[in-house]
Amino acid sequence: MLNQNILALGKKRSTIREIFEFGNQRAKLVGRENIFDFSLGNPNVPAPDSVQHAIRDIINTKHPSAIHGYTSAPGNEECRAAIAESLNARFGTDYSAKNLYLTLGAAASISLCFKALTASPADEFIVFAPFFPEYQVFIEHGAGAKCVVISAQVQDFQINFEEFERKLNPHTKGVVINSPNNPTGVVYSAETISRLSALLTTKSEEYGHPIFLISDEPYREIIFDGIEVPFIAPKYKNTLVCYSYSKSLSLPGERIGYVLVPNTVDDFGDVYAAICGAGRVLGYVCAPALFQQVIAHCAADIADISIYEKNRNILLEALTSMGYKCVKPEGAFYLFPKTLEENDRAFCERAKKYDLLLVPGADFGAPGHMRIAYCVQTETVQRALPLFEKLAKEYGL
Amino acid sequence: MLNQNILALGKKRSTIREIFEFGNQRAKLVGRENIFDFSLGNPNVPAPDSVQHAIRDIINTKHPSAIHGYTSAPGNEECRAAIAESLNARFGTDYSAKNLYLTLGAAASISLCFKALTASPADEFIVFAPFFPEYQVFIEHGAGAKCVVISAQVQDFQINFEEFERKLNPHTKGVVINSPNNPTGVVYSAETISRLSALLTTKSEEYGHPIFLISDEPYREIIFDGIEVPFIAPKYKNTLVCYSYSKSLSLPGERIGYVLVPNTVDDFGDVYAAICGAGRVLGYVCAPALFQQVIAHCAADIADISIYEKNRNILLEALTSMGYKCVKPEGAFYLFPKTLEENDRAFCERAKKYDLLLVPGADFGAPGHMRIAYCVQTETVQRALPLFEKLAKEYGL
Repeated sequence: MLNQNILALGKKRSTIREIFEFGNQRAKLVGRENIFDFSLGNPNVPAPDSVQHAIRDIINTKHPSAIHGYTSAPGNEECRAAIAESLNARFGTDYSAKNLYLTLGAAASISLCFKALTASPADEFIVFAPFFPEYQVFIEHGAGAKCVVISAQVQDFQINFEEFERKLNPHTKGVVINSPNNPTGVVYSAETISRLSALLTTKSEEYGHPIFLISDEPYREIIFDGIEVPFIAPKYKNTLVCYSYSKSLSLPGERIGYVLVPNTVDDFGDVYAAICGAGRVLGYVCAPALFQQVIAHCAADIADISIYEKNRNILLEALTSMGYKCVKPEGAFYLFPKTLEENDRAFCERAKKYDLLLVPGADFGAPGHMRIAYCVQTETVQRALPLFEKLAKEYGL
Repeated sequence: MLNQNILALGKKRSTIREIFEFGNQRAKLVGRENIFDFSLGNPNVPAPDSVQHAIRDIINTKHPSAIHGYTSAPGNEECRAAIAESLNARFGTDYSAKNLYLTLGAAASISLCFKALTASPADEFIVFAPFFPEYQVFIEHGAGAKCVVISAQVQDFQINFEEFERKLNPHTKGVVINSPNNPTGVVYSAETISRLSALLTTKSEEYGHPIFLISDEPYREIIFDGIEVPFIAPKYKNTLVCYSYSKSLSLPGERIGYVLVPNTVDDFGDVYAAICGAGRVLGYVCAPALFQQVIAHCAADIADISIYEKNRNILLEALTSMGYKCVKPEGAFYLFPKTLEENDRAFCERAKKYDLLLVPGADFGAPGHMRIAYCVQTETVQRALPLFEKLAKEYGL
């Protein structure tokens, strides 16, 4: 009677959801402050003041119809122009409003791209483990294409090029990257990007059709140690950038982001039109109108994300000194250490004894690891350290 | 290379869009005030003051993280409870938060239902002409099911039961109704609803599976002449209500609405879970967070929609006296008269000569008619009347 795949997706409580419920139960017993919830990627940093100012200003000065009315499907022209300008100022690009399609956040942006690009059920999209598990849902159940997973290169979480090259084939329609990465926090090196770009260029020529690079960049601004993160779109002509203001402006619930389609994309007009068509099919109508106007004011702003680097430093140093093994993350707000036993689910289950809530790496396609989302108060991180230590001692460290 | 169906959807400028562009061009020549744009269903009534108060109050009193953070996928519990309570107070029902799934407006609500219910490409959804054309897009390209159209019963725009009954079959998964209706403004009578409910009950039993009634109700509150509009869900147990605050609170750009799944629905738990699953697949994540909180305050409020009845009265009386034929609409903000020649596209083209912007009925599956969206200033309606008269004279009326 119902679509069984979709029913299963709706029924399956995600691990993160289970952990969340566990945390709520425990909080009733021991107090919320004694629960160390590192399971959620919900940024704790407040939106910058400019966002609240912009909202007040818009509400106080504009007529309600001019605030809350429909916008065109690709979005308010002023907002798209402001985004283009902020990108151009930072990256020396020459985008304009017509390169941007505003969306309901990164999940919507990525869904749109898969839906627009999938022409046949034989089409394949490649993802690199560990990866955000909803990619697979969007590819398989949303677009009806195939999701091909490249295993994790666990020593550095860069790309496993050997396996990647082996799995590229004429059905490859697109490749998804996410740097800085959820769940590892790793940033792709300039070398990785340039090797990726060269390989995709060669293979596109060999197959006689473009392989699109879908660059999921919600963590683009959250980078540490003063490193330079290459802006990917200019490095490979057939890049579609999926962005969200969820992390940079700490607005995850407001659902606002974009797809950037550079002029360099083959058949630019058709690709942009297909994105518009996919927006119609998925019932998106337009991005939330008030927040389109907010972004027109705040496109260049960033929340005070310094806490993330501070938290990373504290956690990484402490865990390493306790004997945990972890690739050093240079961005986002996740740590992805090895679990102290091979079975990551068993390990995360054991961590619950200390009210440490962690997500098993298996959920992201990289078992044997745990994701620690440290977008929490620094004090929470500090108070959790003795618990991580007790846990380590259980494993003889 | 791209999905050709989706590309076509993105490339095809809708008639309404074409008209909009024409209006912009003409406005530059003759002034915006001399363009009589009856093509758009963008409500001109402002959102009620309570909405702006709620926004200010939330922004001024809550921490940004508590305003803009993710909510659970079905939505903020407080908001869902407030909606249930407002429905219960009006309709004597006993809904609770668990019957509601918040969405990004009615288009998203309907898309979700089609996606959740479609188990096979042979599944069919029935729509009654004239109908909102995106239904077909969501059914065919979003859910991958078949869209079966029942022709318009032009004398009253109630249901053509003879053809409907003939087209019901074991593949019928659902039936979509939209009362008050876009584009006719007609409200289904109590008799129509009760006959529809009886027929669907009989056929569900005959086929051994439920036929879902998907009731698209964004215009539910916009009714005239003090008529009673039956609330449909209690009349047929397998009803899914799709609602949006676009019209009742004049918030079309904010994308907030819901799916209501009553407890009476067969396999309630599974149907609700499938809606949740479809939300994941379509990349919705959650409804916009600030507006979830606004709705928690304003669920029972309605914008000052009295202008719509006033506009209907003026237009209907004047057009009828000029010789136009029109079924009297009892709700929404549309009039759907016959065009004065059979070719509605040619008629609407001719109307442009007077800067009267109308949408051909063919766009809604009912050629030979025109849609007049009168959600405009009353003064605009009044100044348009002599132009409708000149147009009528061209046809010898």
